[in-house]
Amino acid sequence: MAQQTQSPILGVLGGGQLGRMLIQSAINYNQDIHILDPDPNAPCKDLCQKFAVGSLKDFDTVYAFGKECDVITVEIESVNAEALIQLEKEGKKVYPQPQILKLIQDKREQKQFYKEQGIPTAEFILTENKAEVIHNKGFLPAVNKLGKEGYDGRGVQLLRTEADLKNAFDAPGLLEKLIDFDKEIAVTVARNESGDLIVYPAVECAFHPTANLVEFLFAPADISAEVEQKAKEIAKEVILKLGMVGILAVEMFVTKEGEVLVNEIAPRPHNSGHHTIEANFTSQFEQHLRSVMNWPLGNPDLRCPAAMINLLGEEGFTGPAIVEGQDEAIAEKGVYIHMYGKKLTKPFRKMGHVTVLDEDVSKLKTKAMKIKGIIKIKSV
Amino acid sequence: MAQQTQSPILGVLGGGQLGRMLIQSAINYNQDIHILDPDPNAPCKDLCQKFAVGSLKDFDTVYAFGKECDVITVEIESVNAEALIQLEKEGKKVYPQPQILKLIQDKREQKQFYKEQGIPTAEFILTENKAEVIHNKGFLPAVNKLGKEGYDGRGVQLLRTEADLKNAFDAPGLLEKLIDFDKEIAVTVARNESGDLIVYPAVECAFHPTANLVEFLFAPADISAEVEQKAKEIAKEVILKLGMVGILAVEMFVTKEGEVLVNEIAPRPHNSGHHTIEANFTSQFEQHLRSVMNWPLGNPDLRCPAAMINLLGEEGFTGPAIVEGQDEAIAEKGVYIHMYGKKLTKPFRKMGHVTVLDEDVSKLKTKAMKIKGIIKIKSV
Repeated sequence: MAQQTQSPILGVLGGGQLGRMLIQSAINYNQDIHILDPDPNAPCKDLCQKFAVGSLKDFDTVYAFGKECDVITVEIESVNAEALIQLEKEGKKVYPQPQILKLIQDKREQKQFYKEQGIPTAEFILTENKAEVIHNKGFLPAVNKLGKEGYDGRGVQLLRTEADLKNAFDAPGLLEKLIDFDKEIAVTVARNESGDLIVYPAVECAFHPTANLVEFLFAPADISAEVEQKAKEIAKEVILKLGMVGILAVEMFVTKEGEVLVNEIAPRPHNSGHHTIEANFTSQFEQHLRSVMNWPLGNPDLRCPAAMINLLGEEGFTGPAIVEGQDEAIAEKGVYIHMYGKKLTKPFRKMGHVTVLDEDVSKLKTKAMKIKGIIKIKSV
Repeated sequence: MAQQTQSPILGVLGGGQLGRMLIQSAINYNQDIHILDPDPNAPCKDLCQKFAVGSLKDFDTVYAFGKECDVITVEIESVNAEALIQLEKEGKKVYPQPQILKLIQDKREQKQFYKEQGIPTAEFILTENKAEVIHNKGFLPAVNKLGKEGYDGRGVQLLRTEADLKNAFDAPGLLEKLIDFDKEIAVTVARNESGDLIVYPAVECAFHPTANLVEFLFAPADISAEVEQKAKEIAKEVILKLGMVGILAVEMFVTKEGEVLVNEIAPRPHNSGHHTIEANFTSQFEQHLRSVMNWPLGNPDLRCPAAMINLLGEEGFTGPAIVEGQDEAIAEKGVYIHMYGKKLTKPFRKMGHVTVLDEDVSKLKTKAMKIKGIIKIKSV
């Protein structure tokens, strides 16, 4: 089984931080990467064999970009799936498969998929417009989600009481029963073309109170072996029922009764897997590469307990970014900074992340809090 | 202490595998890198903010390259030190300092430095030409080294008996007493401008029988605590007496009597530190970056025992490289491939390396041997 050093070209739709960390892994394998991103200063600029500037949503742009690649993947879901379907027809490998991207682009279809496949998820009602949301006020408290274009906290809102109904989305979306959960966890799974499948240990996510973004992540999750097992089985079921190739992050709620419900899924490296770079035997980025290139998958075990802190732009600062407290933070043992190469900050923009390692889980939380208090992204 | 995301430019002389792995670390810090290398297809091509093609030995080329940078470092010693001296005069930070590069470029000066500074090293005689080597035949068995231009096994030969004298170098060099050593070890140290200093645990090197290149490396070294301590003290002494800023690999012999003697030093990331990427809290590449940029140094502790295997081009193969056995190798837990992006292989060319992790040191050696037997660099 000889493999050429000059390997097939991997095209990535999106050149943000996920692409950037994918590139860091791809370098180890002499894997040439082409990137398409609408932003000429995207984080992947200067770090790949070809960096093309163009819309991810335009059929012709995506199609022309993909034609020059052998395998095509994504680091963001909102891309032109039709162009990918055409490329797939013409013999290109596209992972995750375009039909799965289409499913995930629409939260309504995603929820129906869970229901049809018997995958546990919060109860929901599809709504076509604001009037339908109001009509279903008996379903409150609920989360109101837009079907399309939601991302990183956008297009998702909590409707707690009737007074909140004035904000209801006036576009196709859904109402999801508010889950009085105990914890939010995530399990990453990966599958290659040959059908090999691996499952990462569950991680625990702590969300920012208002920004709806992961603020802290802890691995391992502080859950029972039974809940962990249930969560892993569900994540496996999701990737198998999707028939997906690539890496898939499955975000789940653990209810106070120990029930596990799928919240959302992401068919790509995901914020809930950033710690794997230092904390696991195989990082999610290398795993994604292995899965889409149909290489053997890597061991997903945790090497050391870890916390991950998102470095979000501080509120009140917009403009050229500066990192405050970096020196103090990196002087600590087991602290790993990953900046994303973004020149401009704005409130809650994901500017980087920090992974903290510590064999002692109780010390880990203290250390993570401390680091979070030290590093701040502000502007000049 | 605010640090701009737009950090000062780091210029690197040499764009080979060491520069490539430095870039992988620099990405995490938004650290812009400019590379100068004579080879338009050098491993760093496509991975940095500026890739300039030109001679590392030409004053004007190095000077012009350095003028556009704020900090200048090297990943190879044989560069034009005079240009660096000029850049330093003009206010650029150059680490390692040019005078140290000059010292290291000449093995004769290096040996005299050890002698003058009381750093333990094998006995030696300076020789101007072949006739002088022959004149000192009483010093045999000895290692005959060229003063300048030796690298990766070139310019070094063993003169065991008088019969070997016909091969003696006919240029300024030296004769070094052949040390009947028990082990070859290496200790990496790093120091920043503020004077912070860290010392990595000792590693053990197993050299290829004929190519004079590290074939295997094991961390930790299987030596007594006393020898380890002695080796660390010597390495610290070397960097302090040099007054050097940057990372320094100190290769040493451990004699059968437990004496520790300095063999050679390298003022840059070095083959003996490749395992640190996965095995230590801070990789040698990140540590080099931290030291030359005057950031706080990182913890050097070993996270897990490791072996490192150099992937050298197989004998009998010259041409476009193919990697045999990669799939089989990466299917194993704790196996990390680093290919260097070199299109062409030739016998003993360093094409990549593999790091193997295992908590169990005895299993580690078996696993390393196995992986070495699996992966081969051949050509089409």
